[in-house]
Amino acid sequence: MKITRAQQWERFKRFYTEFPGIGLAIDLSRMNLEEDYFEAMRPRMQEAFKSMTALEKGAIANPDENRMVGHYWLRNASLAPAPQLTQEIEETLRGIKSFAAEVHNGGIQGLGGPFRNLLVIGIGGSALGPQFVANALGHPLTDKLTVSFFDNTDPDGMERVLCGLREELAQTLCIVISKSGGTKETRNGMLEASAAFAKAGLKFGSHAVAVTGVGSELDKFANENKWLRRFPMWDWVGGRTSVLSAVGLLPAALQGLDIDSMLAGAKACDEVTRQPVLERNPSALLALAWHYACKGRGAKDMVILPYKDRLELFSRYLQQLVMESIGKEMDLDGKIVNQGIAVYGNKGSTDQHAYVQQLRDGINNFFVTFIEVLKDGSGDSILVEPNVTSGDFLHGFLLGTRQALHEKDRESITITISDVSPFAVGVLIALYERTVGFYASLVKINAYHLPGVEAGKHAAGAVLACEIKILELLRKRSEGSLTCEQIATEIAASEEIETVFKICERLAANPNRGIRKTSGSNPFSGRYQKS
Amino acid sequence: MKITRAQQWERFKRFYTEFPGIGLAIDLSRMNLEEDYFEAMRPRMQEAFKSMTALEKGAIANPDENRMVGHYWLRNASLAPAPQLTQEIEETLRGIKSFAAEVHNGGIQGLGGPFRNLLVIGIGGSALGPQFVANALGHPLTDKLTVSFFDNTDPDGMERVLCGLREELAQTLCIVISKSGGTKETRNGMLEASAAFAKAGLKFGSHAVAVTGVGSELDKFANENKWLRRFPMWDWVGGRTSVLSAVGLLPAALQGLDIDSMLAGAKACDEVTRQPVLERNPSALLALAWHYACKGRGAKDMVILPYKDRLELFSRYLQQLVMESIGKEMDLDGKIVNQGIAVYGNKGSTDQHAYVQQLRDGINNFFVTFIEVLKDGSGDSILVEPNVTSGDFLHGFLLGTRQALHEKDRESITITISDVSPFAVGVLIALYERTVGFYASLVKINAYHLPGVEAGKHAAGAVLACEIKILELLRKRSEGSLTCEQIATEIAASEEIETVFKICERLAANPNRGIRKTSGSNPFSGRYQKS
Repeated sequence: MKITRAQQWERFKRFYTEFPGIGLAIDLSRMNLEEDYFEAMRPRMQEAFKSMTALEKGAIANPDENRMVGHYWLRNASLAPAPQLTQEIEETLRGIKSFAAEVHNGGIQGLGGPFRNLLVIGIGGSALGPQFVANALGHPLTDKLTVSFFDNTDPDGMERVLCGLREELAQTLCIVISKSGGTKETRNGMLEASAAFAKAGLKFGSHAVAVTGVGSELDKFANENKWLRRFPMWDWVGGRTSVLSAVGLLPAALQGLDIDSMLAGAKACDEVTRQPVLERNPSALLALAWHYACKGRGAKDMVILPYKDRLELFSRYLQQLVMESIGKEMDLDGKIVNQGIAVYGNKGSTDQHAYVQQLRDGINNFFVTFIEVLKDGSGDSILVEPNVTSGDFLHGFLLGTRQALHEKDRESITITISDVSPFAVGVLIALYERTVGFYASLVKINAYHLPGVEAGKHAAGAVLACEIKILELLRKRSEGSLTCEQIATEIAASEEIETVFKICERLAANPNRGIRKTSGSNPFSGRYQKS
Repeated sequence: MKITRAQQWERFKRFYTEFPGIGLAIDLSRMNLEEDYFEAMRPRMQEAFKSMTALEKGAIANPDENRMVGHYWLRNASLAPAPQLTQEIEETLRGIKSFAAEVHNGGIQGLGGPFRNLLVIGIGGSALGPQFVANALGHPLTDKLTVSFFDNTDPDGMERVLCGLREELAQTLCIVISKSGGTKETRNGMLEASAAFAKAGLKFGSHAVAVTGVGSELDKFANENKWLRRFPMWDWVGGRTSVLSAVGLLPAALQGLDIDSMLAGAKACDEVTRQPVLERNPSALLALAWHYACKGRGAKDMVILPYKDRLELFSRYLQQLVMESIGKEMDLDGKIVNQGIAVYGNKGSTDQHAYVQQLRDGINNFFVTFIEVLKDGSGDSILVEPNVTSGDFLHGFLLGTRQALHEKDRESITITISDVSPFAVGVLIALYERTVGFYASLVKINAYHLPGVEAGKHAAGAVLACEIKILELLRKRSEGSLTCEQIATEIAASEEIETVFKICERLAANPNRGIRKTSGSNPFSGRYQKS
């Protein structure tokens, strides 16, 4: 699509849309789509608007799980389809703010004095949103608590975080976040943290808060162990859209961030993206641009390039939001479609030095979303050349890379926000939540369930059961060693020799597990026994 | 490819290869390739071995830039094709170790006392390797210096890092890394850091070290300003393969990491991957597996999933190594091929909760590389269930997810290492460096040049030149405002109205730039003037 620079300016004016009320602009001029695409998609977009209206009113928008989808109510509780829900949302928000205030003013303290650190224990939707927000809005000089995370079940990783807290465990507040209350990684993180507190002579419950579904395993445990507080999660909020529930708001409020502004940004964005008029709806524009680039079937990867350090974790947040929502085997009619959009990226201009070489010259299997932030920040700017600041370079690299890609017919969207404020972060969250919802409607899938994740957890459970049998077998044998094939036979798992092999190799590598290995003539003839 | 579990065990035994000397195993059993693929590729692989041998002996393996490619000499200096090079490598290594020792023993101090912090200023190949190594091997209780990075030209991001250093600037050592010595982001970072030191009454040169090409702009500047030390970079080491030169070794040594073991790991891995025998060469096996999955033309994305927090930055390191090396427009014969492999991923099991939904159910446009680490770490392990540790869960999730993906015919490679030690990190670096080299040979491209990155830098330069003209124009006009179209005409840039518009919008958003905007009836009729 070679056009003159003058034509390009006309095209830019046609495809650049400002939404001044929410400090947002969307530029689709570097996507190859034309007017007729909008026209052709208009009827399907109207269907998407209708589905979204029904969803917001409390329809069972997640049919497989028979659930409502209510994350839009979190920032405008009056929209909730029942007074009871409105009240719960508002009460939770009040509870978060008053708890944070008490922590900040010292009304609630740790066993070693006022809280100085916050350890957030969660994974997936219970970590990616809080991590994104903490990094986007935090600052070492103004944060009221210093935030760290357990977001995995790696004992070594947790030990490193705990050592980072050093002497300050007695002034560390822990938030354990699990909607279901049964996520194993999070349960393990809680137990590891709890053990560290116990070792330091501290009662974990005096330092712990839970965010979980009412009546869940975690909820009961927290209650029985007299934790400081429990905040609710609801089945009508999915993990990947939970950042504006207690999941994200509680850590943010404790860090000292302005959660009211985040909610206001999301609410204001919702009002704009609720309009059933394609041209005036940034989420509808984005969803159509995705649909165009991906041909409605994931034909291209989505590369997220915010030119701002504070937005470095946005792509990881979007990986979950987009890929869990769109990556589905079947459409709503049960037809196999294997949908999806792969998302990656970190930040500009850093990533220019990592892979713009491939983006410009290599395989054209992606479209970029540039995120342009107009304000540099609050600090003073020095001049690094006459009249030029570091921020000018950052902006110059964004525009330069956008042009260099365009010259080679690599497509890009540019999203402009005025700053990385709590309000703008709320806008971005709401913008992408609704875009994903619209896109799912366009390709006729359920964006709100997770049918593909149970198989792996189930298989992991079988591995652990197998490991326990192996440990029991080898520990009770006082002498003699066995090969993995023999062990598999002994524990009646002859179909699972490979799993037995993998488990034995790992046990033998960890001396504290009490299993040792004698190498054989090939990798599979090693023998294992009690050490 | 449905086979029984018993057949699967036979397949595993066929495609699982241990390399005990370097603590490595490669499992290709979950790739769909068969014996005949190896046979078919054997002649091309032999060509790749030959090219690699020539490269290691000092051939001009980067023909466009007329350069040798010598990163393998860094860990075995005796291989370098000239005694002068051997000597330079060895001298540099000795210089790094003696400088680090002097910093650690207080022989070299900051203006406020012994160094406690290290600020590394670099981008791309001068940041991704050092960041990966620092995170993989560091520990808050044993690090001799606390490491932070400037890896961008975002003034707000740099301000946050500086505030994180708080009162300790007088005990902070800065390493400025730029091979060419002219990278603008790094130059800007140096100037911002320098200004912060000056503001604190400290002479930057007394806290600064340079890693750069001899005679570069940076080298001269450091010399003139009496920096503490200068360490050389060579034109025969590319940025993306520079982590075992002073670029990566100096920060690592200062952090207190065992760089001799890293080098030993890389050297030992080189010896294994130098063997021109497919079955005994893990890099050759990996390169063939990539070639199979990607059909030799980037048909699949490479998802990197290390199940270990310490390896979280490995995929970002590999993004650069793989995408810059393989993402090329032309092959060695000048034919347009648009090669590439997109790389993304963070860590397991965390990423299971972000996008395994899509991997299992959605679009099958990827292959996974699982990285399995046998040892849990050095800390004590608690039991989170009878007989079960957090690390057992981590391993269980790896095996469970691998199986769940395999059931749905999603391909995966599993790389096993015994631990995340300096030696193992050296092995991983060398393993992937050579794999990329082999893959480039298989698809007949130059892995060592970067022809695609200049256009963006050039366009960015034009944007900055345009901005300076706009500032000069508006600042000299004492009254009256102009639209972006009028400004473009005034500065003789009527082809660049869009650029003028983007620049004006940003200048007006930053009050300290002295430009204000009066909104118009549409986004393009705003007027700008001196404020």
